[in-house]
This record gives sequence, structure tokens and C-alpha cells, in this order.
Amino acid sequence: MVIVMKLNASEEEITAINEELKRYGLEGHLIHGVNRIVIGAVGDREALLSQGLEMMPGVEKIVPIMRPYKLVSREAQEERTIVRIKAAAIGGSEVVVAAGPCAVESREQVELTAAQVKAAGAKLLRGGAYKPRTSPYSFQGMEEEGLKILADVGEKYGLVTVTEVVDLPSLDVAREYVDMVQIGARNMQNFRLLKAVGESGKPVLLKRGLSATIEEWLMAAEYVMAAGNAQIVLCERGIRTFEPTTRNTLDLSAVPIVKELSHLPVIVDPSHATGAARWVGAMSRAAVAAGADGLLIEVHPNPAKALSDGPQSLTPVAFARLTQEIRQVALAVGREFAGEGMLSR
Amino acid sequence: MVIVMKLNASEEEITAINEELKRYGLEGHLIHGVNRIVIGAVGDREALLSQGLEMMPGVEKIVPIMRPYKLVSREAQEERTIVRIKAAAIGGSEVVVAAGPCAVESREQVELTAAQVKAAGAKLLRGGAYKPRTSPYSFQGMEEEGLKILADVGEKYGLVTVTEVVDLPSLDVAREYVDMVQIGARNMQNFRLLKAVGESGKPVLLKRGLSATIEEWLMAAEYVMAAGNAQIVLCERGIRTFEPTTRNTLDLSAVPIVKELSHLPVIVDPSHATGAARWVGAMSRAAVAAGADGLLIEVHPNPAKALSDGPQSLTPVAFARLTQEIRQVALAVGREFAGEGMLSR
Amino acid sequence: MVIVMKLNASEEEITAINEELKRYGLEGHLIHGVNRIVIGAVGDREALLSQGLEMMPGVEKIVPIMRPYKLVSREAQEERTIVRIKAAAIGGSEVVVAAGPCAVESREQVELTAAQVKAAGAKLLRGGAYKPRTSPYSFQGMEEEGLKILADVGEKYGLVTVTEVVDLPSLDVAREYVDMVQIGARNMQNFRLLKAVGESGKPVLLKRGLSATIEEWLMAAEYVMAAGNAQIVLCERGIRTFEPTTRNTLDLSAVPIVKELSHLPVIVDPSHATGAARWVGAMSRAAVAAGADGLLIEVHPNPAKALSDGPQSLTPVAFARLTQEIRQVALAVGREFAGEGMLSR
Amino acid sequence: MVIVMKLNASEEEITAINEELKRYGLEGHLIHGVNRIVIGAVGDREALLSQGLEMMPGVEKIVPIMRPYKLVSREAQEERTIVRIKAAAIGGSEVVVAAGPCAVESREQVELTAAQVKAAGAKLLRGGAYKPRTSPYSFQGMEEEGLKILADVGEKYGLVTVTEVVDLPSLDVAREYVDMVQIGARNMQNFRLLKAVGESGKPVLLKRGLSATIEEWLMAAEYVMAAGNAQIVLCERGIRTFEPTTRNTLDLSAVPIVKELSHLPVIVDPSHATGAARWVGAMSRAAVAAGADGLLIEVHPNPAKALSDGPQSLTPVAFARLTQEIRQVALAVGREFAGEGMLSR
Repeated sequence: MVIVMKLNASEEEITAINEELKRYGLEGHLIHGVNRIVIGAVGDREALLSQGLEMMPGVEKIVPIMRPYKLVSREAQEERTIVRIKAAAIGGSEVVVAAGPCAVESREQVELTAAQVKAAGAKLLRGGAYKPRTSPYSFQGMEEEGLKILADVGEKYGLVTVTEVVDLPSLDVAREYVDMVQIGARNMQNFRLLKAVGESGKPVLLKRGLSATIEEWLMAAEYVMAAGNAQIVLCERGIRTFEPTTRNTLDLSAVPIVKELSHLPVIVDPSHATGAARWVGAMSRAAVAAGADGLLIEVHPNPAKALSDGPQSLTPVAFARLTQEIRQVALAVGREFAGEGMLSR
Repeated sequence: MVIVMKLNASEEEITAINEELKRYGLEGHLIHGVNRIVIGAVGDREALLSQGLEMMPGVEKIVPIMRPYKLVSREAQEERTIVRIKAAAIGGSEVVVAAGPCAVESREQVELTAAQVKAAGAKLLRGGAYKPRTSPYSFQGMEEEGLKILADVGEKYGLVTVTEVVDLPSLDVAREYVDMVQIGARNMQNFRLLKAVGESGKPVLLKRGLSATIEEWLMAAEYVMAAGNAQIVLCERGIRTFEPTTRNTLDLSAVPIVKELSHLPVIVDPSHATGAARWVGAMSRAAVAAGADGLLIEVHPNPAKALSDGPQSLTPVAFARLTQEIRQVALAVGREFAGEGMLSR
Repeated sequence: MVIVMKLNASEEEITAINEELKRYGLEGHLIHGVNRIVIGAVGDREALLSQGLEMMPGVEKIVPIMRPYKLVSREAQEERTIVRIKAAAIGGSEVVVAAGPCAVESREQVELTAAQVKAAGAKLLRGGAYKPRTSPYSFQGMEEEGLKILADVGEKYGLVTVTEVVDLPSLDVAREYVDMVQIGARNMQNFRLLKAVGESGKPVLLKRGLSATIEEWLMAAEYVMAAGNAQIVLCERGIRTFEPTTRNTLDLSAVPIVKELSHLPVIVDPSHATGAARWVGAMSRAAVAAGADGLLIEVHPNPAKALSDGPQSLTPVAFARLTQEIRQVALAVGREFAGEGMLSR
Repeated sequence: MVIVMKLNASEEEITAINEELKRYGLEGHLIHGVNRIVIGAVGDREALLSQGLEMMPGVEKIVPIMRPYKLVSREAQEERTIVRIKAAAIGGSEVVVAAGPCAVESREQVELTAAQVKAAGAKLLRGGAYKPRTSPYSFQGMEEEGLKILADVGEKYGLVTVTEVVDLPSLDVAREYVDMVQIGARNMQNFRLLKAVGESGKPVLLKRGLSATIEEWLMAAEYVMAAGNAQIVLCERGIRTFEPTTRNTLDLSAVPIVKELSHLPVIVDPSHATGAARWVGAMSRAAVAAGADGLLIEVHPNPAKALSDGPQSLTPVAFARLTQEIRQVALAVGREFAGEGMLSR
């Protein structure tokens, strides 16, 4: 960290800072500027110290130098992480697509969707059983009954299953049924849940909070990894801005940035970001072109009758058309998409 | 709701909308504009319908008319709610102040703080035992041991105690020790926790999420009230914006707006909003002038040694000085502050 | 517009609204909801009326139905506008790239850049002569001398030239030298300048303001078009959000949305949006995949010595590599890139 | 500035940085951290250098230390600036109020307003003659004719006049008629206009841009002051955020922050910030309690018939009531309000 002293900081105040640094095993380097003194001190423990130093007499401000995350950083691991779940490998050369309804509503609904998204090239089947809804008067999910359906259908069609967990009890149930758990945007800083998912060892899809900086998002991943679980896939799903046309603003620049800062794979959810099915295609193509390792897309056999998020869901037919476009873009940027699947059809 | 049809919507499409409305017991009113048709349909169940209608052929967009919250609205209850806990009455004529450290660190620390904030006019003692921290490497709280300290000290000094709960287990423990539980900004949309707090019947301090609209905040309160608990105090604590100088941007206009839309009391936390002790005074005075029913202020006997949020904590001496200023502003806007202090005037 | 009445609105208040509507030639349609009355009135003149009606007794709020822009809307003109300037056609099947330095610094600098970006497939040469700089102590541009250089070099290499204008005097000078003028983000709501550009008839590149909604951006274009100039190319260049890693947040969803709402072409500036050369490639590919009609990319022969915005400038070599990638993505989404250039290779 | 080197930066790269610093007369101080090297270099010219250094091999990032503004800073001038115009002194012990219509519409309208706001304690009369309007189809102002009315009425009632200028021609006209010119939010970074106002020597009211950081706002003031004009009053008027209830989010924490960073006075415009007359009172009281040196409030004799911004305008009666409240809050925080009114107490 760099400690910027006030213009009129006294000798005693500077000495006091140096003493404090020494007590923590750091050495302070004085830099005499034109009209003020700054003190440099870099080390692993700088985060621990910075708050206290900020309040010492004569200090104007503290400028942090080190990034606060460690395990998830490229500096800790140069090699890219590939999260492998059954036949899916997220973070490798292939662009992997997860598709399915926002909420599990019935076995028929999930089967209809699964058969068609599988045929179109999806590797993962998504479906919510515990729904965080803004209104207490909205449909809240089928819970364990929904998970059973998801698990059965996933197995039948050879799809990796993923579902959102919202607290410790739902995690305990979900981990028995699905292949991967999802932490939703609203729970990105539910630190107890992050730790529990970390301890579970279950592969996890970690969505970015709707007002989380990229650094905070990586810190959330750090919670999971510090608890022993490196099977983390990050998911950009739009951030909150002043623009009212889209539900959120999809921050696609997060894709190359996360790949620069971290070894973890990153996918994109254009359905929640835009909030409207007619913009999902353009943003899916853009995400793949930006380097995303995969997509999370809402598909419903009858969007107008969906109990949750219908307006942003694609029909299976629209989804199949979209995967053709995704394949073209993936190839254009040196990636693959569901290559073997194509050969076998 | 108002259903805006596309320019070229057909007769059949309009008829289909009307049929759908009738099926739900609503009547559609056609309005023939200069160059398009809009359909008005207002009723309690409009929220249930709007998503499906949005996707029907010929529809351009749906404009909602009704607000989505009911129980917490002024329309449901014209009379203002006063949350009474022991000697404190939040939402009445008195401006009520909650003060204390961000985190409970030791009995001595809490006692030192409590004695002084009580003398200065605080009615509530705050202290965190379960801390949601951005970094897994930061101090995470004393948990039940901290709650015992808070409860003991609160009783000794006649202060109402309030502490944050972060999940169902921490709620179960905390409700045994403290007078009021707090839902933090990060958990404002932790709907399971909201319901559980609602069912507990415990008075609750509900902070605004750092990127929550006022409507979403009131919907979170609706979750608590729909579960049977009307003892809710809302707390504005700053929203996330592009401005980097303050930790968050304190949205004081939320105070008159909440009082217009809802019957619930609203207080303000200038400590978390600004992130710096030297701006807490100005924003505390401003909050009271804007009509806030109270304040939540961080006070620590030695901010430079605090394990959490030191830079934004006042010393007890600074807090005592601030309460004098708050009293003056409260009187200027027709409110009272701190009974005992008032006697001595 | 829809006029939502207060719960307890009186007969007289409703009658007064209807009288007011009639005075402006509109008819009010009463909709009796479960517990309130709303009045529908749709027409061209609704915008003129809405403010006054909002303040009449008994009115709770006004909900606008019509969009405020007309000439730039798809409803006014279904056919897409193609802006043709010399050999360039923006908005057609080809993805058009404008490249060049942030600021014109010398003839040598511009020539070096022009030769190489032309060879790599750029159709337009950009270069600033009037620089809006945050600091009064920064380089402010070469003004007319810079424009002469830009014009000469553009002619020599057969490149369409584009430069930013910042006020009426700079517009008067620039229109004599360049093929297209640019309205920068900071001047997007400089309405006098918009009108003057509209009256000039000069093709214009209209950047989105850094906190402008898409609707406000289209209203700015409406100013230009209402003054008689339809040669408008919109340019998304990032919006201001809370995320500090990038200079701005590139809002690529604006691309499909603008194309849905307006007939005008839209291009993307990934250089200003990201603020860092190493993220320009990913966002350029993403922009083309999202359907952008072109790109605006900063290229400087020696970025480390640039007088303005060096860190976000590509070297000519990096730019040439990028255009190869852009071509692949363009083909993948059914567009072309630098067709003639391709034939000659 | 602090130059953070990459983990694997070579000796040669570090030497190159030091050479570059020396060439500009700065000395680099090497700090050997646990696992990387950072170089400190502090001096007046650091801003000039930082961009180029950021791009040199081995450099990870540049962290600026010095603030970019100089003349407007507290460090340059400890004593507070008081802007004196006729009988008004902005920045002294008195809270000064500017009131009047958004737009000058007629002599009668301005006179009616002026008589009443003067009686209620206003010192300044505001009124727009050049209106920047989002829509080209809205009323654009009476221009010079409006300025004549404003000047006449101001003189008649002994009120200091202030009006917005939007470009060089309007500045040339306005400076002949009014006592103070206003730079609106949309022109806060119209650097040509800032310079011209600086050279004019005319007192200026400089509004914060709707997405400007406090630092950018102070840099805009630096433009004016660098051109020779220190008669600057800053005006907070709300920033753009995700919250849709208010037109903008009033950032009152800007008041104590500006007073800490700069010697210039700062006032608050609650009318534009909230966009609704019924919230202006609460935010006016809050602004004064936060330490604002004054207020800018829209008053119209008949808000429902205003040609611009009616919904946010107070009636003269409501304004008179508000000034009574403002007086109470001003006294509570050790300020005065309105000489004549004070005599009558």
C-alpha cells in the first residue's frame, strides 16, 4: 500500500507510521515529493493494516496496491481451470451451452425442453426449483419435487443438471439431485452460502451480483475456493445501470477482464441481462465473440404460459436456430461448439 | 395495466387479448388513439397477467399502473406505524438514535461504548456478531459469544439492542438475545430470511440493498409483513453509484418518498453510506432535516483499532457532540430528541 | 397517455381532466378499476399536455404511451438508412471501420497511420483537432492546422475523413475540410450544436452521451433530423456505471435495440469504452457479432508517445491483426468486411 | 504516482522506467515488496507522464497520488471564497436563496414571482432564456427578450439576476443583462464555454454534470479559474442513478466533500434533483443542514401552466412557507438566513 501523508504532516507522525508498519513486519519506504511525503509498504498483510493506518494522525489517504484475491488469480495459477462435469468441459476449447426453463413447472415441460435443447447442442440443463422472487405473491418454485424431475430428465437425455440454491437447506437437498449448483446474483455476497458451497465440493456456477464490481465477484469466488472448492464457473448476467430499456446492462467487457485476472472459466447469461427474448440472439453471438466459455439461456416450450420470466425465454425452435449462429461465431473466433454432436446427427 | 398494441395489430389480436382478460375476470377498455390502439385493464390481479399478455401477438408493451406492494402502502394503512420496543418508539415525534460498534469485539469495548452513547442520548445499542465481509480473510464476528455481551450490556444500560442476522441459524440464535434484528443490505432480497423474520414476529431493521430501488425495498418489507410481522423499520444506507469519493451515495430523498408511499418508519445510516467519520455529522444533520425518524451511527472507543469499519466510526466524544447538533436540527423541524436530554434543557 | 387518478379523486376532478383534454382536441376514456379510475388519452399532442395534467387536483401520475421521437423511428421509416460518403456505405451489408489517432499531432503521424489502416481495410480515417479534455492543462488539439493534415492525408489514401466538432466555430471550420463531423459524448445534448449540424447537411457521427439513455440519444438524433439532415450514424461508446476496471461500460445491447427502434445505422467505439488497448479486440469482435454496422478504433504509430489516450490505442500492426478477426466474425454473422480489399489479396 | 511493476518485470524494464522519469526531472524510488516491485515518483508533472509510463513494458498499472486540480483546491487557498454580487454574499455565514421560474415566459410571470420571492427572503432571481430541452419540439426559451425582462424585474425588486448560457453567442448576450451566468449540467464539460466564462470575469454558477464525479466537477471549475475568474459558485443538482422515483438522485454528501476539497462555495438545487415539488421542502431543509451555502429553487406563479418543468415548481405561497423552515434549520446549524426576514423576528 501507499500511505499519502497530509501536506503538513510532522516528523512525529511519520515516525509513528513507520513504527506501526514495523510492528507488522513491513518496512516503510519514504518518498519525498515536491510538496508532500508518501510512504510505500508492500506485502501480503497490507490489507490487514490499511484501515488502522488510514486513521492515524497526518495521514491523508491509503492507496492499495495488491489485489485482495489470491487463489482465484492468474498470478496464483497461470494455467486455465477447466471445470469437467460428466461429458461437459467448461473452460476448454468448446463453447458450452446450458439451456432450460427459468423454473421447473412440470415433468412434461422439462422433458419437452430437454429433448429439444439436447438435439440443438446444449450440454447442460438448467431449471429453478427454489426461486428468489421480488414479490411474495409470485410463484416460489416446486422445491424438492422439481429437483427430482430435473434429475430424472437430465439423466434420461444425458444432460448435466444445474439448479439455483438459495440457502443452506436448499443446498443440502439440491446437492443430492443435481450435478452443479448455482449461486444467484442476489446471493453473490451471501458469504455463509459461499462457504457451504465451497465445503460441499460441488461444481458451482457463480453469478455476478447485479451491482457487484468484478473485484467483488472474484472475492466471492475466493470464498468458495478458500473453502476448498476450485470447480467454479463465473457467470456474467448484467449489471444495474440507469438504462431502462433492458432489465440489466450486459457487461461483456467482463469476459476478457475476468480471463486476464483469473484462471476460472466465465460464461454469459443474455436472458436475464436483456429481459427480452428478441435481444438474446444478438447478445449470445456477442458473448461468444468476446471469448465467453459458454452461455446460459432460458428456453421454455410455451413462453407465454411460463410461471416465471416468460418474456425472456426462447422457444425450442428459436433456440435451435440460435445454436446454429453460435456455432458460426464460435468457429470464427477459433472455438468449437458441440462438434461431435453435429457429426452424429 | 395498459396494453399498448403494435401499429399494425389486427382485429383478431385485439379480440384475443380481450378473451384472455375475461378469463381472469378483468374487462378490457379499448382506447382508439390517432394511430394505434391501447387497452386499459385495471385490477388486483393485473400483476399475475402482465407477463403472459406481453408475449401475445400484436402487443408492443405492457405498462403497469398499480404498485406491486399492498400491506406496507399508505393506501392500505393511512396511519403511521410506530415501532415500540421497550422505552423506544420509532416513527413517533422523537428522533431515535441507535449507536455502537460495527462489530462486537470484547465486553470492555461494548461497555465503554454503551455507557457513553447512552449518556449522549442514544436509545438503541447496535453491534454485529455475524459479519458479512467482502474478504474471507477478514474478521467474521464473535457470533453467540458476542450476542451475550451485547444483551448483558444493553440490559445494564437500559438500551434496546439490535444486531444483524445473516441466515436462519443466526436468526434462531439472535432472537433469544436481542430486542431487534437487522437485515443487512446484502440480504435485502434474501427472501427466505425475510419470511423467517416475518414469522418470528421480532422487530426488524430492514436496510435498503445497495442497488435496490425504493420499490424493491418496499417489496422486501412486504415479504416480512405478509408473513405476519408489522414491526418493521426501514433504513436508508446509501446506494451504489459511479461516484468514488464516498463508499456509497446516501439517497436522502428516499426519506420523504418512503413516508409518502408507506406507513412504516424510516431511519438513516450515514456511517456506511459515507464510509468516513468526518462526513457523518453533516449527513446525520441532513437526514434529520429531511424527516428521518432516526439514525444508525457507528461508534467505537478506539476507531483506529477497530476490527471492522474503523474509518467510518465516531469516537464517543465526537458522537456526544453530534447528538447536540442533532437535537438542534430536530427541534428546528418540529421533532424531539432524547427524553432525558430534553429534561435538562 | 394514461392519467392515473388518486384513490379518492372526486367527480369534479375527473370532469376537469376531461375538459382539459377536450380543449386540446383529445378524448378521455374512463376506465373504472377495482378501486381507482384511470383515464386513457392517446394522440400526437400528448407530450405537450402531460406536464400540466400531472399537476391537476386528483391526479396521482401520468404514464406516457407514445415514444417522444418521430423522424428517427422505425415507425416513420421502415427501410434502413444507409449513410453513403464517397466509397463508404454505412448501414449496408458491409461492416465499415473508422481508424486513426485520438488527436492529430503531426503530418508524419497521420500519414504513417493512414497508410497502414487503409491497407488493413479501414474505410474512414479519424483524427481529433479540437479535443475536449478533462484538464485545462492537457493538450487541446492542433485545430485548423490539424484539419488540413487530416484532409490532405485522407485524400492521398482515399479515406473518408471524420473529426470531432465542439462548438459552432469549430463546425464552421471543420465542414470545409472533412467528409463527416463527429458530435462527442460530452456534446450529445448540446442542442445548439445538434441543430447547426442538422442545418449543415454534413454527415454526422453522433456518439451516445456517457449517461444518456437510448431514448435521449435518439432524441438527440431527432434534433439533427428535424433540422433537415438524415445523414446520421449513431455510435455506442460506453456508459458510466459503478464498475471501475473499464473507463466506461460498453453497452452492446444498445446495438440490437437501436436497430429495432430506429432506421439509422449504429457503430461501436471499443477504444473509449474500455480505455485499454488489450480489451479492444474482444469488444470489437463482440460488437460485430451483435450486429454493429461498423467500428471506430483508435490507432497510433507509437501509443506510448501519444499526446492523448495512448493506453487505449492500438499499434498499426495490432490493428491489422484485429481486422482479420473482424472479417471472420463479420462473415459468421452474414456481413462483409472490406470487400474490395479481400478481392485484391 | 506509483508505478506497479508486473510480477516478472525485468531489470531492464525497471531501468527504462527510471530513465524515463529522470528525463522529466523526477526521481524514482524503488520499493521491493514481497513479490513485486513498485516505483514511487511524486511531482507536479506526474499527470503529464502517467499515460506514457502505463504503456511501457513490465508495467502493470499506474496509481495516481496527486489530485489533478490545483487553483480550486483547499491546498492552494485555505481561506474560503465568498462570491459577492451586489447585496448577496455566497459562501459567508448567510444561507442565500435563488428562486424563480425555470423559463422566463412573460414580464407578468417574472414580476409576480419576483415580488413574492423577494418578500420571502430570496436574494437572487433565476430565469432561463436559453433552454436546453431534450425534445426539439419543446419550448426553447425567449432568448434576448427574456433576458431584458429578467434584468428589468431584477433591478426593480433589488434582486441579483442569474441565467443559463449554453454557448458563446448566448454568453455574449447574457453578460450584458444579468449579474451572474449559469453553466448547466449538460454543459459542465463544454470546455470552450468554461474558458469563455472564465475570461469574461462574470460570476458563474457551475452545476454538476448529471454523471460527473466530484473530481470532474472541480476540474470544470479549474477551467474557469485557470482562465482568470475566481467568482465561482458550485451547484449540486442530482446525479443519474438506477433509482427511477426521482428525476435524479440528490448527492448531498457532495456538500461536505466539496467544502473539504475546495475553497469555493456550494449550493444545492433540490428542484431539478427531485423533479417533484412535494419533495423540494424536505431536500431544501436537508441541504441547509448538510452545510450548503445556498439553494436554487424553482418558483412559478402557476406551475400547472408552466412551459417548462412545472411539476417541480413551487407556488410563491409554498416557497414562502419553505423559507420559514429553511430559516429554522439555518439557525440550528449556526447559519443565518435573509436579512430583512431576520429583522422581523
